[in-house]
Parts: sequence; C-alpha cells; structure tokens
Amino acid sequence: MSDCTFCRILRGELEASFVAEEKLVVAFLDIRPINPGHTLVVPRAHAPLVHDLDDPTAQALWRLARRCDEAVRRSGVRCEGVNFFLADGEAAGQEVLHTHLHVVPRFSGDGFGLRLPPGYSIRPRRELEATATKMRAAL
Amino acid sequence: MSDCTFCRILRGELEASFVAEEKLVVAFLDIRPINPGHTLVVPRAHAPLVHDLDDPTAQALWRLARRCDEAVRRSGVRCEGVNFFLADGEAAGQEVLHTHLHVVPRFSGDGFGLRLPPGYSIRPRRELEATATKMRAAL
Repeated sequence: MSDCTFCRILRGELEASFVAEEKLVVAFLDIRPINPGHTLVVPRAHAPLVHDLDDPTAQALWRLARRCDEAVRRSGVRCEGVNFFLADGEAAGQEVLHTHLHVVPRFSGDGFGLRLPPGYSIRPRRELEATATKMRAAL
Repeated sequence: MSDCTFCRILRGELEASFVAEEKLVVAFLDIRPINPGHTLVVPRAHAPLVHDLDDPTAQALWRLARRCDEAVRRSGVRCEGVNFFLADGEAAGQEVLHTHLHVVPRFSGDGFGLRLPPGYSIRPRRELEATATKMRAAL
C-alpha cells in the first residue's frame, strides 16, 4: 500500500523508533503517546482489519505485544500496569487502516481512561441472554 | 480462587450469559456492557495478570476474542467495528483480578471513547528514541 503510514514506516520512508523487529511483526513507539513507552505492534504485511491477518501473523502480533508488556515493566520507563487496545474498524476509532495493537504503560493518576457512554449500567439477565443467543448462533 | 468473581462464574456459582466454552478459555457477556454484545474472554484457570498465562492459554484467549469479533459482526447485534481492550493490573483499570480480554462492538455515535491525558501530543524524536533504547534493552 503505497500511501499507508505504517507501510511507509516499514519501507523506511518515514522515521520511527523501533522496539522490536520480527519476521511477521514489528513494534515501534507511537509518535503521540498516551504515556511514555506507548508502543504499536504492527504486522509487516498490510492488513486493514484483524480479519485480514492470517493466523500466524495474528498470533505473532499478540505474542510480541505480551513481550512488550513485560519489557516496559522492567525497562525503567514508568509503568505500574499496561493496557492493550485495538481499534478494529473506523467506527471503533481506527485511524491508520493497517491493523495495530496498542501497548500502553499505565501509572496511577496518569489521567488516561475510558469515556463511558450515557446509560452505562448493569443489564437485566433476559436482555443479556437474548444477545448471547444471537452471538452463539453466529460463532 | 474461592472468591474471584470469574472463578465463581466458571464453577457455576454465579450466573453468566455464555457465548463460547472451550477447553482453556470461555467467553461470556459483560453484565455492564459498553454496548450490547460486549464480551469478556476469560481463561478457565485463575491468572491475575497476562504474565501468569501460559502460552497455549494466552493464544486461545486471543483466538477466541478474534472469533467473537467475527461473530458479533454477523450476529445481528449492532456492530460497525470492534474494540479489543485488556487492563493488565489495577493501575491499568483492572477491576476483576482474573485476566480478561474485552471485545466491544462499536457503532458510530455510540458515545464510547478514550479519555486522553493532559499534555497528549506528538513527542520529539530524541525523546522517543531514548524511550525505545530503554525498551529494546529490556526485551
């Protein structure tokens, strides 16, 4: 993909601060970090959505993300916990349409969090069961 | 773990709306969904942190989460995109101390999002490189 930002980084056309380079996946720092050490784990092959990853690449992505979680905790970068986050599709907040898994170091009082939707509340069991029934049928 | 909420669900002591049950991992609906269809993928064996998962369980967790992403999109539950989210440690917002991967259906205008910390901004390359150097040394 000639104009995909991550493909351009992978071709060396744009600068990035690499943390790891493997056969199927790489990790580099987000240029706009939520906290210092915020890392993006990215497949080498262009794949817009998680669905577009083959199984070895999907597994390598998650394995490297877990290694980054371990690494940042012992790196000296401030880290008391880690969030993994992936936006699969533009409606989910995906900005670069080349799948990437965020690994975000967290510490108490860092100011990051989730903005929950209006009406966020415990739902009745019958409503949850109706949804689960639809999902089981689709699995 | 006798009083862990997810262990109690897995022992059948607490109710849950199951979506999938596999040998190493299960998926059930979050009782307090961000959006309908919000699913938790959970290892059967008690493991507080991602670090505590053995590799087959970690891989099964991510594989089932990806299957849930696919399933919810074709289930009829409203879904235009999906967020994967995992809080690894209390400082990262983990509430139940038994590892769980959130799979959250998203749609345009659903009101969910990230609350970004003050000072969120593009960082200079020298700062990113200093952080990446520390992380590479720890990998």
